[in-house]
Amino acid sequence: MENNLSFIPIGGIGDVTKNMYLYEYKNEILIVDCGLGFADETMLGVDLLIPDITYLKNLQGKRIVGMALTHGHEDHIGGLPYILPELPQFPIYATNLTAEFANEKLKEYGITPRVQKVNFDGGDLRLGNFILNFIRVTHSVPDSSNIFIKTPVGNFYHGSDFKLDLSPFDKKKTDYKKISQLSKEGVLCLLSDCLGSERKGHTPSESTVTAAFEEEIENCKGKFIVTTYSSNISRVNQILQVARKTGRKVCFIGRSVIKAKDITQRLGYMKIDKGMEISTKQLRHYKDSQVVLIVAGSQGQENSALARIVDGEFKEVKITPNDVVIFSADPIPGNEISVYALVDDIARAGARVIYSELSDDFHVSGHGSSEELMLMMNLINPKMVLPIGGTFRQMVAYRGLAEKQGFERKNVLLLEDGQEVLFDRENARLGRKLDLEVVYVDQISGEEVEGFVLRDRKRLATDGVIVILAEVTSSGQIDNLDIIVRGLSNQEASDIQKGLAKEIKIQISQKKGIKDRFYLRKFIVEVAEKSIFRKLRKHPLVLPVVIEI
Amino acid sequence: MENNLSFIPIGGIGDVTKNMYLYEYKNEILIVDCGLGFADETMLGVDLLIPDITYLKNLQGKRIVGMALTHGHEDHIGGLPYILPELPQFPIYATNLTAEFANEKLKEYGITPRVQKVNFDGGDLRLGNFILNFIRVTHSVPDSSNIFIKTPVGNFYHGSDFKLDLSPFDKKKTDYKKISQLSKEGVLCLLSDCLGSERKGHTPSESTVTAAFEEEIENCKGKFIVTTYSSNISRVNQILQVARKTGRKVCFIGRSVIKAKDITQRLGYMKIDKGMEISTKQLRHYKDSQVVLIVAGSQGQENSALARIVDGEFKEVKITPNDVVIFSADPIPGNEISVYALVDDIARAGARVIYSELSDDFHVSGHGSSEELMLMMNLINPKMVLPIGGTFRQMVAYRGLAEKQGFERKNVLLLEDGQEVLFDRENARLGRKLDLEVVYVDQISGEEVEGFVLRDRKRLATDGVIVILAEVTSSGQIDNLDIIVRGLSNQEASDIQKGLAKEIKIQISQKKGIKDRFYLRKFIVEVAEKSIFRKLRKHPLVLPVVIEI
Repeated sequence: MENNLSFIPIGGIGDVTKNMYLYEYKNEILIVDCGLGFADETMLGVDLLIPDITYLKNLQGKRIVGMALTHGHEDHIGGLPYILPELPQFPIYATNLTAEFANEKLKEYGITPRVQKVNFDGGDLRLGNFILNFIRVTHSVPDSSNIFIKTPVGNFYHGSDFKLDLSPFDKKKTDYKKISQLSKEGVLCLLSDCLGSERKGHTPSESTVTAAFEEEIENCKGKFIVTTYSSNISRVNQILQVARKTGRKVCFIGRSVIKAKDITQRLGYMKIDKGMEISTKQLRHYKDSQVVLIVAGSQGQENSALARIVDGEFKEVKITPNDVVIFSADPIPGNEISVYALVDDIARAGARVIYSELSDDFHVSGHGSSEELMLMMNLINPKMVLPIGGTFRQMVAYRGLAEKQGFERKNVLLLEDGQEVLFDRENARLGRKLDLEVVYVDQISGEEVEGFVLRDRKRLATDGVIVILAEVTSSGQIDNLDIIVRGLSNQEASDIQKGLAKEIKIQISQKKGIKDRFYLRKFIVEVAEKSIFRKLRKHPLVLPVVIEI
Repeated sequence: MENNLSFIPIGGIGDVTKNMYLYEYKNEILIVDCGLGFADETMLGVDLLIPDITYLKNLQGKRIVGMALTHGHEDHIGGLPYILPELPQFPIYATNLTAEFANEKLKEYGITPRVQKVNFDGGDLRLGNFILNFIRVTHSVPDSSNIFIKTPVGNFYHGSDFKLDLSPFDKKKTDYKKISQLSKEGVLCLLSDCLGSERKGHTPSESTVTAAFEEEIENCKGKFIVTTYSSNISRVNQILQVARKTGRKVCFIGRSVIKAKDITQRLGYMKIDKGMEISTKQLRHYKDSQVVLIVAGSQGQENSALARIVDGEFKEVKITPNDVVIFSADPIPGNEISVYALVDDIARAGARVIYSELSDDFHVSGHGSSEELMLMMNLINPKMVLPIGGTFRQMVAYRGLAEKQGFERKNVLLLEDGQEVLFDRENARLGRKLDLEVVYVDQISGEEVEGFVLRDRKRLATDGVIVILAEVTSSGQIDNLDIIVRGLSNQEASDIQKGLAKEIKIQISQKKGIKDRFYLRKFIVEVAEKSIFRKLRKHPLVLPVVIEI
């Protein structure tokens, strides 16, 4: 046990987001990534999820030797401001742009920036017993890396988000040579992105998108409006290129795209010619046919710049029939309703809208497809593979690919979050299972939202709320009973109001003077819930208020 | 005006579901279809939507001469039990299976079945000034029809849901001959399904699915489990065919698939060999490799048969690693989260799961793609076209196809629900715009849910509820103030409780004795909402309770 390497995913397995992985050897812990998760429609009023770090808060003599961040996406670095203040000090490392994004985020939350930069050609980085090497890979944000991790037990290839694009926009290809060289020393386990494992073939190159943009902008008589993920820097660079070619000015709209632009421009990852960029206020000096707008809101988010423009809340920009609006991003599962509602609204304004159902030409995934995932297995030639960063069905599809490449099923490790795997030099076996909670964060307050609050909200959302106001005499007799109903239909409310007061009174009188207020409240809730469920098949939240008169 | 033909969609435009269309000439109204809509996640606690028939309830001397139903899907007939009781008597017509489905539905709701059957070769059906001809088309339920409607102003082709499948499973092809013959007389307007307008080429034939099923069942060592829409009768027939070929027994699980099977089997649309069907109780007498299960729940619905099997709530059937589970249906937009959660759970149980992201081979759409929609325009050669049964973006894509076929933009009518079009013999122009409400139905009670109730629920769902209990003296002084908070985090609740009581007391004392209870309540709500929003940026539902002591 003592000489095993323990690997524990505390986020990112069976779930695309909130990536956070622990490598543990003896009393040393190495953390890779610290991501956020995004709430779906079933998580009412919650915006974010963070990994449960209870395990790291009770170190019991262990020590965190450091943290490495693979790339600058929210689901890999977004948890930092919530999680770092909860943990002891340790060094954090990332490549140039990743570190910059992470530090900017910490500053925003009033935390001292402390992510240190590593070079792709910087050689070994020693963190206790772990030796790290950052390897450049292609993905939809520059400076994305995979990490080669040497441990006393064996070598691990931490292959988070990548694709193998042979003609990326920034010309910086995956470092195949470094992968091969390091892997020569033998790799015990390849941890691999598996998000694209259901797709056949190769993910098309980023460069295929340029041609589609060029054709479309040539035929555009009005504003050329593009929305994409703000972190998709190479996409924005492509848009800048077509703007340059056609002599259009560029205007960035929306907090997130402006922030990403500022950072990447400062570091030289985005080049904007002098005089090419204009502000929203300057827009009125130009004809529609002279501008390109790069706008936040590709997921149809309610308060995003694009949604507000379409709603007419943005006085500098209106959608007109000559405009072309391109969604250069796929809807994330769960966002379809809001994305398509926005598409419909833009179409109603008369503009030409292009989105993924209509054309695949304006977006390519940042994740490798089957062939790329299999190629990676071959380049690295590990003893075992372990899919990360995907849903369970994608992990199963990845296993299919691995089996095609000759891996035995026992050497394909499908985990769940919290499930430890213990590696020795030859084998792997399951270890402890941490009991992880889902940690919800309210984006407005930044505070954690407890699970019971969400359960209350779900009841409130579907079944409404009932306040029962009971005025009781000092002898425990109910003198008066008022019922307030909200979130139920008029008919249901009157059904409830009709018999309920009487029923509660009768049942309480049978109990003959309940003096204990707590008990009385509980009793009122019980009677009310039963009665309402019998009548309406619903479980509204019942709030009893007892007043002694 | 008097001699115009008025067309009013009251559901089904800009919205795939709740199809209901009115054709009006002088004082006569013809209704086509009477469908349901399905709630999405944003409609909390609501299950169904129905068309707003206020206009039909105030006929003002007009008369409904009849209703025609195009096919047996819920979004075309599901509104009948809610709507028929609200309207005067009139005859209703549909083809064989459609009538049967509709009458069965009426019976279920305790309404006398009254849909009359028409034959595809029955010739003219006269309803007042309207002459109807039902034309067979291919779609994903047998006996689907388009309707050729002759009016004194001109001919209309009511082309709801269709595709042009040249090798449908039941061998009953679209009646191209009848379409051409009737269209020879000239068609003023083609109303056309536009759901598939974004897809290039032709929708593959139903028959392509058979090969995929055959291959998969041959390699299946356990139970062969298929889930599809219960109304997709030809799909079920295909599954029966592969079961027959491999000598497996068939078991139907789930209320909706059993109901559809019973009706179609009785009418001869589904043939099950003697001894081939077994009940869930008989399953234990057979090996897994001897059975095919046809199970309801392809959309991941919480209480569906498939979800319950996967949850282990179904004692007769468990998912095991040798099983193959096929989702022979695409997720309807908005259902992705629940469908994929179910897929993941099945994969966790070790079974092979096949779903649309993984393979397109096991499902084809019931709606025609671009080429079929354009072919229909050419067969019918109308003066104008009007897309129905799609979202706005699909209507826009349909317009693109029509323009490719030489239609001028003014002859492509893009409407909204409630927008009347007035046709004379040559032209069309917009008429009145009915102010339609969205009518929500609670499936448990079958009652309408008012819009304000939904707004309350949304606030409750995201921002919680606060009850403020104020005990006031007869002179209007607040003696005591209690605050109950639910649906907010502990931190937020304590933030609210800290200062709010004091703030309300101070502000009310400045008002010097408000005696009016209504006004006092309103004032408490105002103060509380402002204060809470200032602190938390939230708008919980505030319920004031004022008691005089």
